[in-house]
Amino acid sequence: MGLRIGYGIDFHQLVTGRELFIGGVKIPHDKGALGHSDADVLLHAICDALLGAACLGDIGVHFPDTSAEFKNIDSKILLAKTNELIKKEGYSIVNIDSTLCLEAPKIKPYVAQMQQTIAGVLGISVKDISIKATTTETMGFVGRKEGLVAHAACLIQS
Amino acid sequence: MGLRIGYGIDFHQLVTGRELFIGGVKIPHDKGALGHSDADVLLHAICDALLGAACLGDIGVHFPDTSAEFKNIDSKILLAKTNELIKKEGYSIVNIDSTLCLEAPKIKPYVAQMQQTIAGVLGISVKDISIKATTTETMGFVGRKEGLVAHAACLIQS
Amino acid sequence: MGLRIGYGIDFHQLVTGRELFIGGVKIPHDKGALGHSDADVLLHAICDALLGAACLGDIGVHFPDTSAEFKNIDSKILLAKTNELIKKEGYSIVNIDSTLCLEAPKIKPYVAQMQQTIAGVLGISVKDISIKATTTETMGFVGRKEGLVAHAACLIQS
Ligand SMILES: [Zn+2]
Ligand SMILES: [Zn+2]
Ligand SMILES: [Zn+2]
Repeated sequence: MGLRIGYGIDFHQLVTGRELFIGGVKIPHDKGALGHSDADVLLHAICDALLGAACLGDIGVHFPDTSAEFKNIDSKILLAKTNELIKKEGYSIVNIDSTLCLEAPKIKPYVAQMQQTIAGVLGISVKDISIKATTTETMGFVGRKEGLVAHAACLIQS
Repeated sequence: MGLRIGYGIDFHQLVTGRELFIGGVKIPHDKGALGHSDADVLLHAICDALLGAACLGDIGVHFPDTSAEFKNIDSKILLAKTNELIKKEGYSIVNIDSTLCLEAPKIKPYVAQMQQTIAGVLGISVKDISIKATTTETMGFVGRKEGLVAHAACLIQS
Repeated sequence: MGLRIGYGIDFHQLVTGRELFIGGVKIPHDKGALGHSDADVLLHAICDALLGAACLGDIGVHFPDTSAEFKNIDSKILLAKTNELIKKEGYSIVNIDSTLCLEAPKIKPYVAQMQQTIAGVLGISVKDISIKATTTETMGFVGRKEGLVAHAACLIQS
């Protein structure tokens, strides 16, 4: 068994007039994440961690934000495509641990649904996709509610 | 042997009128970290990494900052409780690598003591808890000495 | 086989009048990274990840920025020295996954050359050094083009 590590980070602005998707779940909030796709910061960080672990480039290489094909796309589709890419290389997911950095809204009530959604897309157990959350204690652009950040770490095996 | 990865990040403001605890060690400084507990940014990041690796939620789930029980608590107690939680799931720690991002004070003189403290609480070797430090080159809220950030990555095994 | 995890992060300001080295490659740009050495943010993050995985301290311990020996030094030399340090402890690299956070310039055209350069220095396959890149969506000091950040995660084995 060959284990490999991956780590991904993603950033999106929070703006009015957009819906907020995090972890494949639509979350009621007065702002949404700005981006070419649905701007799901957590799914993007996970895609990047998985692609990085398999040394397959990054999300921008596979799903360029200049492509009409990916305009407003549901990032669960990008996550499924990412899973296919690493499977094609002979890899399977051991576990993913992720952290959302955002000041608001509280995402705790949605974590279980996010886990189920992501586990479903990736064909893994909900025990193999951890989602944590923290504020930045009002500091920086996250603290000023200008945006949000997601970190994802993963182990994959061949 | 089943390996799993965890990654945690924590943030605290630096303010006057508080003592500064990092890695379980009290560090002489004109500012301290603000928080509900003793605000030990390194121990909190390690707790979150361990909880994430075991898919047990995050530090906010287990030790809510709205609970009087955890007011001004020594974070070594939280770390010990976290260790019990992952042990109960059948996991042991392989190694932890952490990084402190702060502009001041210099923490190098305290790293060995932090390692001994954390190793003692977790029942691991000092060679299995790495503590690194960097400034942010005066950039951002860390660079302006408004706060500090800790990153922790871990491997655990069942 | 004993696996261990490492994670490193590095920061540098972008200023005029300096050349920009990232991943051992000189990149044409109107600004360069400020630092005591050549200020290669990616190589420094990788050094720190490798040192952290082996619990050998951090880049500042081994290559202090107060030492004339390391003034304007090519960070590929620091990376090679780091590799020697972990090899002396009996470790070899399994894989490295890294992420550059910068607003400009686009580094995609240089990624293959960076991979070849780093793989050459470390004596590993290009498939074992992943380099990803993202902007911070114009947020924070990276978004204002004041600086750049690199994250590196690694697995090493004994
Ligand atoms: Zn994104
Ligand atoms: Zn904390
Ligand atoms: Zn550096």
